[in-house]
Amino acid sequence: MEIISEFSSFGGKQLVCSHMSETNDCEMSFAIFLPPNHKNAPVLWYLSGLTCTHQNVMEKGEYRRKAAELGLVIICPDTSPRGKDIPDEKDNWQFGTGAGFYLDATEPPYNKNYNMYSYVTNELPKLIDANFDFNMSRQSIFGHSMGGHGALIMSLRNPEKYKSCSAFAPIVEPSTASWSSVAYEKYLGKDKQNWLNYDSVALIKNGYTFPEILIDQGESDSFLDEGLRPWLLSDACAKTKVNLKLRMQPNYDHSYYFISTFMEDHLSWHRDRI
Amino acid sequence: MEIISEFSSFGGKQLVCSHMSETNDCEMSFAIFLPPNHKNAPVLWYLSGLTCTHQNVMEKGEYRRKAAELGLVIICPDTSPRGKDIPDEKDNWQFGTGAGFYLDATEPPYNKNYNMYSYVTNELPKLIDANFDFNMSRQSIFGHSMGGHGALIMSLRNPEKYKSCSAFAPIVEPSTASWSSVAYEKYLGKDKQNWLNYDSVALIKNGYTFPEILIDQGESDSFLDEGLRPWLLSDACAKTKVNLKLRMQPNYDHSYYFISTFMEDHLSWHRDRI
Repeated sequence: MEIISEFSSFGGKQLVCSHMSETNDCEMSFAIFLPPNHKNAPVLWYLSGLTCTHQNVMEKGEYRRKAAELGLVIICPDTSPRGKDIPDEKDNWQFGTGAGFYLDATEPPYNKNYNMYSYVTNELPKLIDANFDFNMSRQSIFGHSMGGHGALIMSLRNPEKYKSCSAFAPIVEPSTASWSSVAYEKYLGKDKQNWLNYDSVALIKNGYTFPEILIDQGESDSFLDEGLRPWLLSDACAKTKVNLKLRMQPNYDHSYYFISTFMEDHLSWHRDRI
Repeated sequence: MEIISEFSSFGGKQLVCSHMSETNDCEMSFAIFLPPNHKNAPVLWYLSGLTCTHQNVMEKGEYRRKAAELGLVIICPDTSPRGKDIPDEKDNWQFGTGAGFYLDATEPPYNKNYNMYSYVTNELPKLIDANFDFNMSRQSIFGHSMGGHGALIMSLRNPEKYKSCSAFAPIVEPSTASWSSVAYEKYLGKDKQNWLNYDSVALIKNGYTFPEILIDQGESDSFLDEGLRPWLLSDACAKTKVNLKLRMQPNYDHSYYFISTFMEDHLSWHRDRI
């Protein structure tokens, strides 16, 4: 692991690191914020949305002030494998680079590199544990849009690993959303049964569970009806023990102006549970 | 004046506006944050540094949370005239586009468009007053690097206009700094006497005054010795009634990771004085 950049900020350090990922078979970068006292600190993962890298939330997310105060480590992975040797469709922002959908692809040629699910839940935590002195028995996860979807499926499938889960404007049923179903077929093949492992509404319907989920969703989000549809998650949770707190926020859209507004709220929420 | 974009954020509105500037003879853009209750609100101007537009601080400055809480309007002008008809040196980041140095050029061809001093102190406040319902008798100003220089010279030359002044890592003596003196000669001619109207150390030595100035400066700023040299301002102020509070901040550099760390502190400082 190599530290690419290091900035003092809010009494802590904002780092960008890179490493050779075995899981994705390519060089991967991630951002990590170290609060002032980070020995044995809990770790909160932030997963970003379509087209993003680790950099968007690092620059626009406004998480450092509160994370420093609460003593939270914030780790922001990339959204896909990346590089000249990685199969991609350059003109398609909903597939390939920047659109890994936090799944493990099964279809060639994508299965060699597009393994973000195992990368985020397994390889990267091990790398972090080997290189830092945090308390990896205290991890939580959140994310935005495609990254909100990632946080949901990862916590539903690994409730023993993550202490809490929240999301900003998540894609809750990617197997039926227009902006994700095309990618799902390419990554996972034509059999839609295989898609359901990476679909939080389907996981909940199939009995997966998590104690609490916090979601903020802007009412003026232009992707609300087409791709996000948080009511599908509400409906699925209503019949289960999952305690979903869905807050519809009037006037807010899908941007980091929305995310940053509710960022500190989410950090406090995780800090109370992690 | 036209509203180019509008985002809900922290209970207020982050706008970008554009208008035809008479002073700079071109279309100019600026960012403006409206806190939740902005009728009769005081106005705090933020001037950006070399190579920036209004956008850098709008995305990375982390001012909205505190500005919303304090009821401050934040206006962030561009750093120069801009456009295909504006004289420029594309390869020179210290001159032309993004490097207006907040002065009124006297030398052709630059004097037609490079009039950022009059634009920020005169034309833009009038435009704001005509289009919004703020309290324009309560204005303060701050900025970063070249923009810190702008805030200093504008408050020293207009102490009746600005209630308070602060800066992050300002250029305090641009007439002798290597990264500004080349531009000063092109904008203002060879007679260095004319440069001193746009040099805060020279203005203070020449009797201009302002009650209080707050400056934060990172000790690990790579431009510290070459271009910023805040001790020149300390020395100049020591012999006067200017109350300079210069805070050297260990480990911090010149980036928005530094600026955002101390942003809320500056907002509170201005709010107490505006």
